[in-house]
Amino acid sequence: MNYLTDGKLVIAGAAGMIGSNMAQTAMMMRLSSNVCLYDPIAAPLEGVAEEMYHCGFDDANITFTSDIKEALRGAQYIVSSGGAARSAGMTREDLLKGNAEIAAQLGKDIRSLCPDVKHVVVIFNPADITGLITLLYSGLRPSQLTTLAGLDSTRLQSELGKHFKVLRSHITNCRTYGGHGEQMAVFASTAKVDGKPLTELIGTSALTHEEWAALKERVIQGGKNIINLRGRSSFQSPSYLSLEMLRAVMGGDAFRWPVGTWVNNGRFSNIVMAMETRLTRQGAEVQEVVGTAEEQKELEQSYRHLCDLRDEVVKMGVVPPVAEWSRLNPNLG
Amino acid sequence: MNYLTDGKLVIAGAAGMIGSNMAQTAMMMRLSSNVCLYDPIAAPLEGVAEEMYHCGFDDANITFTSDIKEALRGAQYIVSSGGAARSAGMTREDLLKGNAEIAAQLGKDIRSLCPDVKHVVVIFNPADITGLITLLYSGLRPSQLTTLAGLDSTRLQSELGKHFKVLRSHITNCRTYGGHGEQMAVFASTAKVDGKPLTELIGTSALTHEEWAALKERVIQGGKNIINLRGRSSFQSPSYLSLEMLRAVMGGDAFRWPVGTWVNNGRFSNIVMAMETRLTRQGAEVQEVVGTAEEQKELEQSYRHLCDLRDEVVKMGVVPPVAEWSRLNPNLG
Repeated sequence: MNYLTDGKLVIAGAAGMIGSNMAQTAMMMRLSSNVCLYDPIAAPLEGVAEEMYHCGFDDANITFTSDIKEALRGAQYIVSSGGAARSAGMTREDLLKGNAEIAAQLGKDIRSLCPDVKHVVVIFNPADITGLITLLYSGLRPSQLTTLAGLDSTRLQSELGKHFKVLRSHITNCRTYGGHGEQMAVFASTAKVDGKPLTELIGTSALTHEEWAALKERVIQGGKNIINLRGRSSFQSPSYLSLEMLRAVMGGDAFRWPVGTWVNNGRFSNIVMAMETRLTRQGAEVQEVVGTAEEQKELEQSYRHLCDLRDEVVKMGVVPPVAEWSRLNPNLG
Repeated sequence: MNYLTDGKLVIAGAAGMIGSNMAQTAMMMRLSSNVCLYDPIAAPLEGVAEEMYHCGFDDANITFTSDIKEALRGAQYIVSSGGAARSAGMTREDLLKGNAEIAAQLGKDIRSLCPDVKHVVVIFNPADITGLITLLYSGLRPSQLTTLAGLDSTRLQSELGKHFKVLRSHITNCRTYGGHGEQMAVFASTAKVDGKPLTELIGTSALTHEEWAALKERVIQGGKNIINLRGRSSFQSPSYLSLEMLRAVMGGDAFRWPVGTWVNNGRFSNIVMAMETRLTRQGAEVQEVVGTAEEQKELEQSYRHLCDLRDEVVKMGVVPPVAEWSRLNPNLG
């Protein structure tokens, strides 16, 4: 069986739980015959590479390095989980400053070391913001950089499956948009349960308003729930979904969930957030978000929350004021 | 894409690092549409199930339980990593007693709860012994139970690939047999490097006797090396390879490495150890081990080491003397 590409795929943060899972997942998905594992922490990184060799993934060139120059040289695809992990009690926002700086450096490194990269997926938290910062400094086109945003939608599918006691594949087109944090906009109007619109079920005995409100809350707290249950941040699902995104960009199966994408359309300006997005070999293409007036209002609230986060990062001095962005990356004009 | 089977696949030890990886790997390999995750530790187990839901593996019935009866009822395939993990400084043998008891209970549970199971893969250490004990108490036929033994062979492939600086797929038919511990028999005569017999290279400047001895030592210490590098036992490669074994037994791609199998052929008696083995829908079928006289001698030494371990377990009272085994499991007669 062939690989989707022979282009160099760089997995940044490969010594971590997400990154090491991505190494294995990339091999199992047959994404690239040329995978470079990068992490500043050398010993565990080598351990991950050894594990890949011991799996018998023998027809791929799997290299590893703690030298970012060596890692990014010739990179065609990059997925980065290389931020600090969220631990118990820490909000997504607590991570902002440290990871914002890491994202800025990643963007600068991409610009100087692999300006011809085809696509970059950024997944370290808060991914909407770290992706935005990476895009800004990388000089890439907006279609070339996406962030992981599908987990909230799969969590919605999961919770609805549990509530209605049906196989999750019977719950279709679950959608959350906007931020990937506590301010996400959970849409009801897109989803169907066994072919029946979810909106027709909400407020009936099948799913009372109270139950729906509680269910939405479980979706929003889905990541914290994993921490509470496992004693560690989720790592399998972020790894898996972000490589499904790369697979789509490499020309493989379509990605079925929302994607964190640059939006600058008048209504939403200078932001990366979960949008309806098509991922193809041409990269990310934002689609229209369909929803009720109330859902659109929630999406706008979520957007404003992200703007606040973005403006915090401006105040920190990690990125210049928005008015100066198009000078830094003309593709964002 | 269909699953290889709709038969119930039980992953025992699913809350652990190996088990949780197996859950994801089983889904990605499309092994079964009906996967039950079992672990006595309830909270992290639920966390693993949540992660699987959040991956969007939505067309499989993924259940979880801490009740062994519920888990094994109707099981057609079982893979168990449900022992204690080896930690730094601990030899494989230190684990013997605790894991031997766990294996005995697993065998008894299989006998009482799912005597119609098709195949069981045992991978907790020392897998040769825990598999043997599980087989003994389960009452299964020898073809129905195998243990993970391929990792030493992939490690040999990996080390040879590094030494000769070639892609690992150019190193073919690497084989270690016997025990999966420090007494393994590393065969040279089966392997080829770019089509050239390894034995023709050993003792030349391409691979001096000293280099070969050091390389074999790295193979033998491959597991410890992972612990040293990552600060934890290997979990990705044992998970992946053991599910490749199950895949073969379910009728999928052939398994390419040695397998821990029951042997009772006069030369080797009443033991489970790494053998040349065919895995098909009919289960495990032991093949002839081909090697030089010296390699066969090493294999016999490895076998005797395993007999010592087995006899230790007899002395501990975990299993009766070998003479009584066929009463416990008539298929072993």
